[in-house]
Amino acid sequence: MKRKVGIIGLGLLGGSLAKGLVQFTDYEVIGYARRSEICEQALADKTVTHAYKDPKEVVAEADILVFALPPDTNARLFEELAPLIRPRTLITDVSSTKTNFARTVKQYLPQGAKFVSIHPMAGSEKGGYGMAKADLFKNCTWIVLEDDVESGWDAAAAAELAEMGKLLGGRVEQIPMSVHDGFMATISHMPHMVAAMVATIAGGDEFGDLRLRLAAGGFRDITRVAGGNPGMWREIITGNRTEVVRALSDLEQQISNIKNLLLTADDDTLESYLNDAKHIRDKFSLL
Amino acid sequence: MKRKVGIIGLGLLGGSLAKGLVQFTDYEVIGYARRSEICEQALADKTVTHAYKDPKEVVAEADILVFALPPDTNARLFEELAPLIRPRTLITDVSSTKTNFARTVKQYLPQGAKFVSIHPMAGSEKGGYGMAKADLFKNCTWIVLEDDVESGWDAAAAAELAEMGKLLGGRVEQIPMSVHDGFMATISHMPHMVAAMVATIAGGDEFGDLRLRLAAGGFRDITRVAGGNPGMWREIITGNRTEVVRALSDLEQQISNIKNLLLTADDDTLESYLNDAKHIRDKFSLL
Repeated sequence: MKRKVGIIGLGLLGGSLAKGLVQFTDYEVIGYARRSEICEQALADKTVTHAYKDPKEVVAEADILVFALPPDTNARLFEELAPLIRPRTLITDVSSTKTNFARTVKQYLPQGAKFVSIHPMAGSEKGGYGMAKADLFKNCTWIVLEDDVESGWDAAAAAELAEMGKLLGGRVEQIPMSVHDGFMATISHMPHMVAAMVATIAGGDEFGDLRLRLAAGGFRDITRVAGGNPGMWREIITGNRTEVVRALSDLEQQISNIKNLLLTADDDTLESYLNDAKHIRDKFSLL
Repeated sequence: MKRKVGIIGLGLLGGSLAKGLVQFTDYEVIGYARRSEICEQALADKTVTHAYKDPKEVVAEADILVFALPPDTNARLFEELAPLIRPRTLITDVSSTKTNFARTVKQYLPQGAKFVSIHPMAGSEKGGYGMAKADLFKNCTWIVLEDDVESGWDAAAAAELAEMGKLLGGRVEQIPMSVHDGFMATISHMPHMVAAMVATIAGGDEFGDLRLRLAAGGFRDITRVAGGNPGMWREIITGNRTEVVRALSDLEQQISNIKNLLLTADDDTLESYLNDAKHIRDKFSLL
């Protein structure tokens, strides 16, 4: 019998995962969506074999349970559903911040169930089932988190989720749970706030429109992510509050250093700094 | 007789201007390059009718003199060439910072010569004559600076340079000299330093390589300009030192505000902030 993946939440990530699993793997896929039109649409698309408006139905059937709602909603729902989770169920989630959900899971995970978190680094400024597509994870980094066995982590389950990522076209990386949120703050969440801050400084006063008319490609790229969904990013960033604050403090230190170089006219050191940054950026380009 | 444009420096901007003027306008173009192989190449390409290794020859012939070298080099050369500039010559420059060169011009400009600065907001991470192309200015913002007549500014000359920008496919904007460098610090130079700082924070320590392997599209776009030429950017940023420091201080204020919102869990205000930033970014997209 086919292994059954139950997806809690058929938004951009959950919907794309469902579509990808149907197209590229042998898993059977079932899903939960709060709104009945999404359930009907997913059934009509053959994205799932069964769609439920009650997540308990999904929990009752699934071998792998994927929490694909925003982190706080995932945690709330997990707490509610935990007593119904069957032994040997593999729990995972696809959120971009991990600590809060993982804490809830560790607290309520039933005996015998497994928990391996993943983070497929795919997304878009535009969310929702309507944007979901089977190849969303193609060439994306598919992070599988390592944790201690006492937390329900299991090597075979991690291997299954890594294989799933490969089948969907992802590039698998495995990192410890303990460094995940700090890394994300540094490479994604703090940069997101930076994009919003640069847009605010350029456009937020009476000269804003004129400045925006003059801005070019560099500004366009640096601020692109600031066009993302504010509600979604609020949840991502506040869900990783401590690490985002830490990364913003790192940025403050860098700024203080650069201002000092400029004010003391230490232009050679400034050029070295730009040179080192270019070296890092060039290395990233080649990955 | 055709009006003659003399271009001092046949790098990416000067070379592209020469090629564009030949292809899209009636101007005759002559040029100065320090290296004889560039002179020969430009002649072979028919980018110029005459190429000189001595800028004095260009000054002796040109009706419009375009300084297209880095800002400090432009200023040094202008001081040296000023006594040779003929009355009614129109002086311009294409630098991305204006204050320093403009100060030198105002000090040494001969009686009867005119000075109208322009800033075509085009460029590339890759510089040099080899990258120059006739359509570099297509769809770029072509800024013509307003100044006071006592500084040699002239409305007819400004109109001629605006028309030149249009013929090359640019979108002309006119702004006062007094706001130019502050605007550029805000929409280009400070953001450039931010890109370098974000790359440094993500990649500059022992976990750097792992973080870079995990980074995705947001990081790629935010840090893109950090791949630019460090020597060129050193000159741009130090040439606009005061305004860049001011813009970095603006950024420090924003960071302090955001950290405060995060630490006091004022998440509604954070979402409003993200919402306002999105509004600005969306407006920019539609320009």
